[in-house]
Amino acid sequence: MKAKNCKARRSAQSPFQCNQGVVDSIIEHLDRVGKVEHICTFDLPRRDSVVRILDLLSMLLFPGYFGKKAADREKLKLRLCNTANEASELLETEMHKCLLHARHENSQSGGDEAGEKAKAITFDFFRSLPDLIGVLDGDVQAAYQGDPAATGNEEVIICYPGFRAIMIQRIAGSLCKLGAPLLPRIMTEYAHSLTGIDIHPGAVIGKNFFIDHGTGVVIGETTEIGDNVKIYQGVTLGALSFPTDGAGNLKRGFKRHPTIEDDVIIYSNTSILGDITIGKGSTIGGNVFLTDAVPPGSKVSREGPGHKVQNHSG
Amino acid sequence: MKAKNCKARRSAQSPFQCNQGVVDSIIEHLDRVGKVEHICTFDLPRRDSVVRILDLLSMLLFPGYFGKKAADREKLKLRLCNTANEASELLETEMHKCLLHARHENSQSGGDEAGEKAKAITFDFFRSLPDLIGVLDGDVQAAYQGDPAATGNEEVIICYPGFRAIMIQRIAGSLCKLGAPLLPRIMTEYAHSLTGIDIHPGAVIGKNFFIDHGTGVVIGETTEIGDNVKIYQGVTLGALSFPTDGAGNLKRGFKRHPTIEDDVIIYSNTSILGDITIGKGSTIGGNVFLTDAVPPGSKVSREGPGHKVQNHSG
Amino acid sequence: MKAKNCKARRSAQSPFQCNQGVVDSIIEHLDRVGKVEHICTFDLPRRDSVVRILDLLSMLLFPGYFGKKAADREKLKLRLCNTANEASELLETEMHKCLLHARHENSQSGGDEAGEKAKAITFDFFRSLPDLIGVLDGDVQAAYQGDPAATGNEEVIICYPGFRAIMIQRIAGSLCKLGAPLLPRIMTEYAHSLTGIDIHPGAVIGKNFFIDHGTGVVIGETTEIGDNVKIYQGVTLGALSFPTDGAGNLKRGFKRHPTIEDDVIIYSNTSILGDITIGKGSTIGGNVFLTDAVPPGSKVSREGPGHKVQNHSG
Amino acid sequence: MKAKNCKARRSAQSPFQCNQGVVDSIIEHLDRVGKVEHICTFDLPRRDSVVRILDLLSMLLFPGYFGKKAADREKLKLRLCNTANEASELLETEMHKCLLHARHENSQSGGDEAGEKAKAITFDFFRSLPDLIGVLDGDVQAAYQGDPAATGNEEVIICYPGFRAIMIQRIAGSLCKLGAPLLPRIMTEYAHSLTGIDIHPGAVIGKNFFIDHGTGVVIGETTEIGDNVKIYQGVTLGALSFPTDGAGNLKRGFKRHPTIEDDVIIYSNTSILGDITIGKGSTIGGNVFLTDAVPPGSKVSREGPGHKVQNHSG
Amino acid sequence: MKAKNCKARRSAQSPFQCNQGVVDSIIEHLDRVGKVEHICTFDLPRRDSVVRILDLLSMLLFPGYFGKKAADREKLKLRLCNTANEASELLETEMHKCLLHARHENSQSGGDEAGEKAKAITFDFFRSLPDLIGVLDGDVQAAYQGDPAATGNEEVIICYPGFRAIMIQRIAGSLCKLGAPLLPRIMTEYAHSLTGIDIHPGAVIGKNFFIDHGTGVVIGETTEIGDNVKIYQGVTLGALSFPTDGAGNLKRGFKRHPTIEDDVIIYSNTSILGDITIGKGSTIGGNVFLTDAVPPGSKVSREGPGHKVQNHSG
Amino acid sequence: MKAKNCKARRSAQSPFQCNQGVVDSIIEHLDRVGKVEHICTFDLPRRDSVVRILDLLSMLLFPGYFGKKAADREKLKLRLCNTANEASELLETEMHKCLLHARHENSQSGGDEAGEKAKAITFDFFRSLPDLIGVLDGDVQAAYQGDPAATGNEEVIICYPGFRAIMIQRIAGSLCKLGAPLLPRIMTEYAHSLTGIDIHPGAVIGKNFFIDHGTGVVIGETTEIGDNVKIYQGVTLGALSFPTDGAGNLKRGFKRHPTIEDDVIIYSNTSILGDITIGKGSTIGGNVFLTDAVPPGSKVSREGPGHKVQNHSG
Repeated sequence: MKAKNCKARRSAQSPFQCNQGVVDSIIEHLDRVGKVEHICTFDLPRRDSVVRILDLLSMLLFPGYFGKKAADREKLKLRLCNTANEASELLETEMHKCLLHARHENSQSGGDEAGEKAKAITFDFFRSLPDLIGVLDGDVQAAYQGDPAATGNEEVIICYPGFRAIMIQRIAGSLCKLGAPLLPRIMTEYAHSLTGIDIHPGAVIGKNFFIDHGTGVVIGETTEIGDNVKIYQGVTLGALSFPTDGAGNLKRGFKRHPTIEDDVIIYSNTSILGDITIGKGSTIGGNVFLTDAVPPGSKVSREGPGHKVQNHSG
Repeated sequence: MKAKNCKARRSAQSPFQCNQGVVDSIIEHLDRVGKVEHICTFDLPRRDSVVRILDLLSMLLFPGYFGKKAADREKLKLRLCNTANEASELLETEMHKCLLHARHENSQSGGDEAGEKAKAITFDFFRSLPDLIGVLDGDVQAAYQGDPAATGNEEVIICYPGFRAIMIQRIAGSLCKLGAPLLPRIMTEYAHSLTGIDIHPGAVIGKNFFIDHGTGVVIGETTEIGDNVKIYQGVTLGALSFPTDGAGNLKRGFKRHPTIEDDVIIYSNTSILGDITIGKGSTIGGNVFLTDAVPPGSKVSREGPGHKVQNHSG
Repeated sequence: MKAKNCKARRSAQSPFQCNQGVVDSIIEHLDRVGKVEHICTFDLPRRDSVVRILDLLSMLLFPGYFGKKAADREKLKLRLCNTANEASELLETEMHKCLLHARHENSQSGGDEAGEKAKAITFDFFRSLPDLIGVLDGDVQAAYQGDPAATGNEEVIICYPGFRAIMIQRIAGSLCKLGAPLLPRIMTEYAHSLTGIDIHPGAVIGKNFFIDHGTGVVIGETTEIGDNVKIYQGVTLGALSFPTDGAGNLKRGFKRHPTIEDDVIIYSNTSILGDITIGKGSTIGGNVFLTDAVPPGSKVSREGPGHKVQNHSG
Repeated sequence: MKAKNCKARRSAQSPFQCNQGVVDSIIEHLDRVGKVEHICTFDLPRRDSVVRILDLLSMLLFPGYFGKKAADREKLKLRLCNTANEASELLETEMHKCLLHARHENSQSGGDEAGEKAKAITFDFFRSLPDLIGVLDGDVQAAYQGDPAATGNEEVIICYPGFRAIMIQRIAGSLCKLGAPLLPRIMTEYAHSLTGIDIHPGAVIGKNFFIDHGTGVVIGETTEIGDNVKIYQGVTLGALSFPTDGAGNLKRGFKRHPTIEDDVIIYSNTSILGDITIGKGSTIGGNVFLTDAVPPGSKVSREGPGHKVQNHSG
Repeated sequence: MKAKNCKARRSAQSPFQCNQGVVDSIIEHLDRVGKVEHICTFDLPRRDSVVRILDLLSMLLFPGYFGKKAADREKLKLRLCNTANEASELLETEMHKCLLHARHENSQSGGDEAGEKAKAITFDFFRSLPDLIGVLDGDVQAAYQGDPAATGNEEVIICYPGFRAIMIQRIAGSLCKLGAPLLPRIMTEYAHSLTGIDIHPGAVIGKNFFIDHGTGVVIGETTEIGDNVKIYQGVTLGALSFPTDGAGNLKRGFKRHPTIEDDVIIYSNTSILGDITIGKGSTIGGNVFLTDAVPPGSKVSREGPGHKVQNHSG
Repeated sequence: MKAKNCKARRSAQSPFQCNQGVVDSIIEHLDRVGKVEHICTFDLPRRDSVVRILDLLSMLLFPGYFGKKAADREKLKLRLCNTANEASELLETEMHKCLLHARHENSQSGGDEAGEKAKAITFDFFRSLPDLIGVLDGDVQAAYQGDPAATGNEEVIICYPGFRAIMIQRIAGSLCKLGAPLLPRIMTEYAHSLTGIDIHPGAVIGKNFFIDHGTGVVIGETTEIGDNVKIYQGVTLGALSFPTDGAGNLKRGFKRHPTIEDDVIIYSNTSILGDITIGKGSTIGGNVFLTDAVPPGSKVSREGPGHKVQNHSG
C-alpha cells in the first residue's frame, strides 16, 4: 500500500497534498478489506464512557469514599439516585453498541432484540449491586487484615490497586455472566492499565480476595479461585499450551488455567500454569514455577538458595 | 442484602423502580454499618486535587521542564509564586480533610487543632522544598550516569518513570515524616499507577537513587536504602512474614523490610525479603531470591544456568 | 540551598512570605546552574500534545475503532483529512521544539534549519503511514491467532495493551529513524505508563509481533526482533553490563541487547540479557534467565521443578 | 488610597513588587471598611450556578426542547428525575448562601434557621412547578398567536427572547414570593443580559403575556400586569419620581409603577411612567410618553405626524 | 395540573418524593398533550452547535481576525480546510434535525429525503461562501467610512456589534433562501442576544450596510433594504398591524415591513412602520415616528424642538 | 470571486472537493488583498483572554463578591496575589499583540519597543488600581442611593448592568489614556454585549455615576460627564453630523459629543446630540430630543402631552 501522490519528496508537493494522499490510501485500504460500510454503520463503545460508568459505580458502591460529602441523608439519597440513573443509562447505551456489533459479526439480524437485551442485562446487573457491596466489603476486610502497612479501610478503598482491580473485575465478571460482549474486557483492561493487574473478566473469584501491590499479576480466563485467597505482585495464573483444531486454529474457551482452592496464599512473582489444582490451605512461596497440582495443605517453596554469593571484600 | 422492590424481573417493574430499590438497599446497608452520618460529615481528599498538587510541585521544582516557557525572569518569578501559592492552598485544604478524618477515626475531638496542624505541616513542607531540589538533582544525575540509553537530563526529567516515582515518593515521604495521614499514600499510589513502581511513603531512601524501567518494583514501608543505589524493574524489597499479636491481629509498624547500604546495585526481577541487610557496595544479580543478609562487597548471582536447552534443529 | 526568609517557624512569618522565600531560593538555584535564560528561551514538548498526537494517529490508522462512526463515505473522508491535518500540525510543532532544544544542547545555531527539519520529518513520517497500517494489521492477526481468549479483532485493537504498546513503538521508531530527538521517547514512555510495557523506540521489530498481557516487559534500545515473534508478560530483553570509556563515562549507543530471530516464543518472566542471538524458531520457557546464545530450533526451559513441596495436611 | 511600594516608576521596582503593593493596598482598604472578616465568612451565590439552575429548570419544564432526546419513556423519566434532583440541590445550596448573608446584613443570628428556610423555599418552589408549566404554555400560545413571523411553538420556545425573559421572570418571581433574597434578581439580570429585557422579579404578571423583539423593555418592581397583554421592544413601565424620607433617604418598596389591565397592547418604544392604570382593552401606540391614567378601551397614539418632511429631490 | 404526592408540606414528605411527584406530573402533562413519543423521536438543533458553526464560519471568512495565527501559508490552508470540514459536517447534522422535525410537523414522511436535502443545502451554502466574503468586505468598509471613532478594519471586524449582526444575518439569510427551517432563526436570535440587534433572517439587505451601536434595532421579516444604507441604534423597521383571516388566525408571510431604497440614512430611535417605501437618498432624523412613504431625496426630522426648557437657575 | 472546482452541482463533485474549492478561493482572495503574510505574522488579541482579564480584575477589585470565600486573611492575600499576577501577565501578553499590530499598521518597526511599552502600560495600569477602587465605591453608592429597588451594595455589585458597564469602561478608559490600542474597545464592546450599554473607552466620566437599567444607552467617544450624574435606559449622548476633509474622508478624533456637567439627571430614551453642554444640576426628562445647549439648573421635558387619547369605551 503506497501513499498516493506522495511519490517524490523533492517535488513541490505540499503537506496538504501529502496528507490527502495518505487519507486516499487509507480509504482505498478500507475499501479493499470491505470496512467502509461497517465504519459508517456501527459505533464501538467509547472508552471514556466506560471509565465514567466505572466511576459512577464506585460512587454508588462506596458513597463518601468517592465524590463529595452530601449535606444530609436526603441529599445523599438524591445524589445516589442520580448516580444510579446516569450509570444505568450509560451502561445500557454502551452495551447496546456492543450487542449490535456482536450480532453483525455473527451474521445475525435483529437490532431490536439487541435493544431489549441491553435493557435486560442492565436491569439484572443493577439488581445485583446490593449483593456486590457485601462481597466487596469482604475484600476490604481481607486487605486490611492481610497488610500490616494498611492504616484503615479508607486507605484500602481509596488507594489500594489490588482492591480497585478486584472491584472492576467483579463488575465486569457480573456483566460477562449476563452475556455482555466486549464491554467487560474493556473494563478489566482499564483496570490493568491503572494497576498493572490483569484479571480476565471470565475468571471466577471467591470471597475475601486480596492482591497486594499487584503489578504484573495475570489471572487467565478460565481460572477459578476459592474464598480467602491472597496473592502478591507478579503472580501469574496462566495457561501452559494452546491446542489447535484440525485446521490449525486455536481452540477457544476450554479450561486451561489453574483452580485455586480456599485459603491459599501465593507469594510474589510465582507462576502457576495449566489446568491444575492448588489444594485448600496451601502456601506457595515467592518465585516458584509450578505446572503440577499440589494437594491441600501443601507448602511449596523455591528449592535451595538458588544463587551463589561471592564476597570480594573479604 | 437484597435489593428492595427488585423481586421479580418478569413483573412490570421499571429500571426507575429498580434503581431506587438499589439505592434504598445501599442506604439501608450504610445505616446498618452506621456510616450515613459519617458520609454527611467528612470529605475525604479528592484524587484529582492530589494529582493537581503533584503537577504544581513538578512545575515549581523543575521550571522549564513542566509548563510553558516564561517570557522573562520577572514573569518566571510571578509564575512560580502563583504555582507555590496555589499548591500550598490546595495542599493545606486536602491535608485538613485527612486530619479531621483521622482524628474522628481515633475518637479525638478538636477540629480547630486539625486546621492548625494542616497549616503547620504545609508550612514546614514548603520550607523544605529548596533542599528537595538538591536531592532530586542528584537523582537525575544518577539516572543519566546509570543508563547508556539516556540522551540528556531533559529525557530523564520528562520521561523516566523511575525519576517520576522517586520524585513523588520523596514528596510523600516528607509529608509522612511531618505527620500527614493518608495523603502520602494517595500520592505514592498515583505514582504506582503511572509507573508500575510501588514505593511506600514510609521507606527511607538516600541520595542519587536510580530505578531503571521500573515496572513491578515494590519497596516496602520499613525499607532503608543508602546513597548511590541502583535497582532494576521487577525488584521486590519486601517482607517475609507477618506476625500477629495474641488476638490474631497483625502487628503493624515494626521493621520487616530490608536495609540496603550505599553503592548497591540490584538487577531485574530479584526479590530481597525480610529485615536483612545488603552490605555496602554489593551487587545482586537478576532473578535472585534472597532472604538472608549479605556482607559488604558481595556479588550474588543466580546459581548455574538453571535451565536446560534442547536443540531440535540439530 | 536554604529557603530564604524561612528561618524560624515560631516567628510571625506568614505562608505568603514562606512561599516567596521558597521561590527566591529556587530562582537563586536556577541562576547558579545557569538555567534562567534557558527557561525563558525554550519550550520543551508538552506531554498532553504528544498524547493528542497519538490519539489522532490511532483514529487515522484505525477509523471506526477509535472515535465516532461517520455518517457516510464522504464524511469519513472529511474527518480523516481533519484528523491528518491536525496531527501533522501538532507533530511539526512539538518536533520543532525538540529540534531547537537539541541544537542548543549541542551548541549548534540555526533555528531556521530546525524549522525546515521539523517540516521534512513530519512530511516523511506521514508518507509512511499507509505502509504502517499493513504492518499493524499483521500485529492484530498475530494477537488474534496467538490468544485463545481473544473474541475478535475489535477486542485486540481496542483492548489489548500489547497491541497498543507495539502501535506506539512503531510510530516512535519511525520518527526515531527519521532523526527526531526526545519525542519518540516521550511516546514510548507514555505507552509504558499505560501498559507496563517498556519498548525503547530504537528497538527494531519485525512483522506479526505479539506481546500477551505484557506488564513488566522491557525491550532495550539495541534489541533486534524478527518476524512472527511472541512474548509474554515480564520478559526482559536487556543489557548485561555497561562498559565505560577511559574517563569512566558510560559508552552509549553500541549493540548491547539480544537479537531474536524469526518465529521465536518467549514465555512469561524470562530474562534474556546481553548481545546474544536466540536462533530462529526457538521456544524459551517461563522464568528462564539466559545470558548465552541458543541455536535455531532450541527449546530452553527452567531446569527441574526448582522447588520443594511439603504437605502438612497428610 | 495609594498603592504601597509603587511610588516611582523609574526605580528598579519589578511588576512583582508592584502587584504586591497593589494587593497590600487592597487589603488595607478592606480592613478600613471592615470587610476582611466578612469575605472570609460568607460565600455569595455563584453566577454560574444560577445559570445552571435555570438551564436545568428549562430542561425540566420543556423536555425535548432543551437537552438531547430520550431513548424511551423510562429513560425520559430517569433523566427528568436527575434534572430535578440536581436542580433542587443546587438551588437549596445557593439559596442557603443568600439567606445566611441576608441574616448577617440584618444583624440576625441563626445559621440553622437559614438552612431550614432554604430547604422549605426549595421544597415549595418545586411543588409549584407543574402549575408553572401551564402558565408558560399560555405564554407560548400568546407568542404564536401574536407574531405573524412565528413558524411554530418550537421557534417560540427555543428562540424567542421574550419567552425566555418571561420564563425566567416567572421562576424568579415565584422564588421572590417565597421569601428568597438576592437570587431572584441575579436570575432576572441574567435574562436581561441575554435578551435586553429587564423585568424586576417583584413585578406581578398575568397569563398569556407576550413581549415581541423585546430589547430595551423595562418593567419595574411594583408593576402589575393583567392577562393577555402584549408589549413591544423599548417599552418602559417605569417610575416617575422617587420620594425621600425626612433624612433624605429614598423610600423603598411602595407602589410607584403602572398597573396594566387585561387585554392591553403597548407598541414599541412607548414609556408609561408612575403609579397609573391603563384600562382593560386599551391600545397604546408606539413612541408614546404617558404619565396619566387612561380609561378602559382607550386608544392612545402619538399626536400628529410629529415630523416634517422636506423633499430635496423635487 | 397538581404535583402528585405533594399535597401537604407538613407531612413527612421528603424532597425526594416531592421531586418525583413533580416529574410524574410533568410526564402526565406530556402524555395529555401527546408529546412523549415526539420527545423520544426527534432531536431539535443544539444551540451550542449552532454557536460553534458560526464561530467556525467566522474563522473561515476572516482568517487571522478570529483564531490563532498560522505558521505559514501551508498551515493556513490545512487549518482552513479543517475549519470548513468541521463546519460543513456540523451544519449538515443540525440541518438534518430541523428538516426531520419540520417534515413531521407538516405530516410528511420521508426521512431519507431530509438527509438528501440537508446535504444539498449545506453544499450550496458552502459554494456561496466566497461571494459572501466580498459582500462582508463591503460592510466592513461601510463601517469604517461611516464612523469617525473607528481606528481601522480590525476594530470593525473584531469589535463592532453591527458588523457581527449583519455577518450572522447574511449567513442565516442565505440558509433561509436555500430552504432551511428553524436554524436561521436560531442564528439571528443568537446575534440578537449578543448585540441587541434583531434582524429577521428573511429580511433582504443590500451591499455596504452599516448599523452603528445597534442596541434595540429591529428589522422585520419582509423588510427590503438597498445598497449603502446606514442605520443607528434603536431604529425599528416594523409592521403596523396584523390582519387575520376569516377564522381569526394571523395571516403570515405577506409583505408588511418597509422598503428602504439605496443611500438612505436613518438616525437613532426612529421607527418606520408598515409596507412603505423610503425613497433613495433620503435622510430620516432621530426619534422620528413614520408610517407613510417618503419620496426619494427627502429629509425627515422631528418637528420643532418637541420639548420646552424651563430655566430655574435664572 | 467564484469558488474554484464548484462549478456545477449536478456533477459528481463531493462536499470534500467543494470545501477545498472554497478554501482555495479564500486564499486566492487573501493573496489578492495581500493579507496572507500578515495572517502568518500577527496574532490579534483573543476575546476569551480579554474576558478572563476582566474577570480577574473583578475578583481583585471586589474580593468576596466574585470568586469563592477565602479561608482566612493569609489565604485571601495569597489568592489576591495570584489573581494580580495572572491578570498582569495576560494583560501584558494581549497588549503586546495589539502594539505589534498597531506598529505594523502605522508602518513602524521596532518589535522590542512594543514589548517594553506593553510592560510599561501594564505596570502603570496596575499601580492605578487602588485609586480605581475608591472611584468604583462611589459608583456603588450612587446606584444604591439612586434606585429604590436596590436592597444593598451586594445586589448592585453582583447584578446591576449599569455598574458592570461603568466598571469595565473605567478599566478600558484607564488603558486608553496610557496609550493601549484596540484592547480598550474590545473591553467596552464586551460590556456592551453583556449589558446593552455602549460607552466608548474614550469618554471621560466623573465620580458617582449611575446608569439604571441601561439597555440602549450610547455614550460617544468625546463625551465628557461630570460628577454625580445619573442616566436611564435608552439615553444617547451622540454626535450630530460627521464632517469630512477635502478628500471626502471622515475627520476623526475631534470633539463631537455632549458635555454633561455635575449633578445632571437624564431620563429614559432621551437623545442629546452634538458638542453641546448640559449645565450643572439640570434635569432632562424622558423621550426628549436635544441638539442645543441648556444652561445650568434647567428642567427640560417633552412638550405637551404629545399624544391624543381616544376613548372608545365611553
